Amino acid sequence: MANQSEEQNQEQQQRPIVMVHRLPTFSFSFANRLKTHYHLFDPLDSPDLIDLHRDSVRAIFCVGPSPVTSELIARYPCLEIIVGSSAGVDHIDLRECRRRGIAVTNAGNAFSEAAAEYAVGLLIDALRRVSAGDRFVRAGLWPKAGEYPLGFKLGGKRVGIVGLGSIGSEVANRLAAFGCSIAYNSRKKKPSVPYPYYAKVCDLAVNSDVLVVCCALADETHHIINKDVMTALGKEGVIINVGRGKLVDEKELVQFLVRGEIGGAGLDVFENEPYVPKELFTMDNVVLSPHRAVLTQESFEAIQEVVVANLEAFFANKPLVSPVQNE
Amino acid sequence: MANQSEEQNQEQQQRPIVMVHRLPTFSFSFANRLKTHYHLFDPLDSPDLIDLHRDSVRAIFCVGPSPVTSELIARYPCLEIIVGSSAGVDHIDLRECRRRGIAVTNAGNAFSEAAAEYAVGLLIDALRRVSAGDRFVRAGLWPKAGEYPLGFKLGGKRVGIVGLGSIGSEVANRLAAFGCSIAYNSRKKKPSVPYPYYAKVCDLAVNSDVLVVCCALADETHHIINKDVMTALGKEGVIINVGRGKLVDEKELVQFLVRGEIGGAGLDVFENEPYVPKELFTMDNVVLSPHRAVLTQESFEAIQEVVVANLEAFFANKPLVSPVQNE
Repeated sequence: MANQSEEQNQEQQQRPIVMVHRLPTFSFSFANRLKTHYHLFDPLDSPDLIDLHRDSVRAIFCVGPSPVTSELIARYPCLEIIVGSSAGVDHIDLRECRRRGIAVTNAGNAFSEAAAEYAVGLLIDALRRVSAGDRFVRAGLWPKAGEYPLGFKLGGKRVGIVGLGSIGSEVANRLAAFGCSIAYNSRKKKPSVPYPYYAKVCDLAVNSDVLVVCCALADETHHIINKDVMTALGKEGVIINVGRGKLVDEKELVQFLVRGEIGGAGLDVFENEPYVPKELFTMDNVVLSPHRAVLTQESFEAIQEVVVANLEAFFANKPLVSPVQNE
Repeated sequence: MANQSEEQNQEQQQRPIVMVHRLPTFSFSFANRLKTHYHLFDPLDSPDLIDLHRDSVRAIFCVGPSPVTSELIARYPCLEIIVGSSAGVDHIDLRECRRRGIAVTNAGNAFSEAAAEYAVGLLIDALRRVSAGDRFVRAGLWPKAGEYPLGFKLGGKRVGIVGLGSIGSEVANRLAAFGCSIAYNSRKKKPSVPYPYYAKVCDLAVNSDVLVVCCALADETHHIINKDVMTALGKEGVIINVGRGKLVDEKELVQFLVRGEIGGAGLDVFENEPYVPKELFTMDNVVLSPHRAVLTQESFEAIQEVVVANLEAFFANKPLVSPVQNE
């Protein structure tokens, strides 16, 4: 028995260290699964251990959008990888990672389907006025006010997808089944994609009835949906954002909506969450959502698999499952 | 000039008579188009003309769900066709039409796409809680109450379609693109359809996470979604109804929802419209819609074409475009 325990101890010593990084409000459910393969240290549980392992930590598991600053990165001189569990990684200082040669992984495709179906839901809602009709019924207005105004049909609409990554591609697949015509903008034309490509978002907007924004947030995509794009989209146009709030110039969008210079919007993300511009609260052509596009009760299983697979790949010197392109 | 006018007169006399039947609240925009081919009589405009033409009317154009009773039908001894402009025809006394051998046409596929996309919108909303999240944001709760509860993913769900007609088929096409598995119930198995068929709705419900109800209302489909079907669907199950209110036993549905014995519902139609059971007004797993699934601002063009085509076919003794099977 003593021997076995010693063996177990030795085996545990040989397990690689994985440092957990999370805001106190974020938790994760599969710590026990990770502990069977790694020395898992969560500074929120045992802050003293940070100093003990500082010089040997090669991998950080970042829970949700917990901010990974350059200061945090600087604490770990041997850091080689940050395994993320969110779709976007704008909470991680990618510049510092690039400088230090630290790899970053994200949720990969684990959330893409959930985000894509939510984007379609927001779009149907914004066009057909589902939420607004629901408010109308709940307010008891149907017997009093009579017929609720008609919305617009999704089928046949020209949809421009801003960012044809894993989420954008899933959006395109779904909307094609509704009889929408699809076009897209992204950093580069994708050779294997059959949809028309527009190098400039403004050109995509001119040729679209709807823009679905699902690109990553970075310096070059900050306010990618600006005043000029909204003008190009036109007064019947609808903007859906399931990416990040800062992809859209929110102040401008509010003004366009107030002035009736754009047709509607479905917004899951905002520039200053959880704060949402109050002007939008009274609009029936707008759907407001508290950043719920990617997460469902079914998502956690999928994200767990991606995190485990990336950690395994890293420690086995194999290709990462969902590396973030950080050039 | 005199001659030409006489010719015009003669030509007008030869135009077939079409009697309009509509409730005062229903109007239609293409009277002028119909008048170029038909003597169009609208009793609401000129009630005297009914008597004048009673014995020569072969065709009635019924606007929307204006009730066509046996009394109305009895007024016209030569009536051969009722050209409808709605998807469902439960407002027409089909039994009397059958007895008299009067043909009935409906909107055909003109509304199918709009209804199907709305059904998908209601389903995403009911699962992912889009309307409820919108209410949460508009009530200013996001900064105060924190994270809104997670919904359920649509992708991967087993969807049972009750009534695989033109709307049901369009629903199936769209949901397949979301990664749902599809099965269906209808009067008969459809030989060309790849989805599993269940002759009994209860068996379909046992094998489904979601039921989308889009069959026609008739004696044999009244309360087709009853207590037994709801029990078979189970407490995580979701019911979407874009057909008719009376397809669902509404009292039972409310009780199942109150007791948490069913997961949620998206309802565009109700048993006693415009009255909606008040118990539903406080539920976040329910989406309430004021009977807007089939109509959009784009629909009117399509319905106009179907009505014109059916009238043309009838007077030219050609096969009708969208005859209702009335056996």
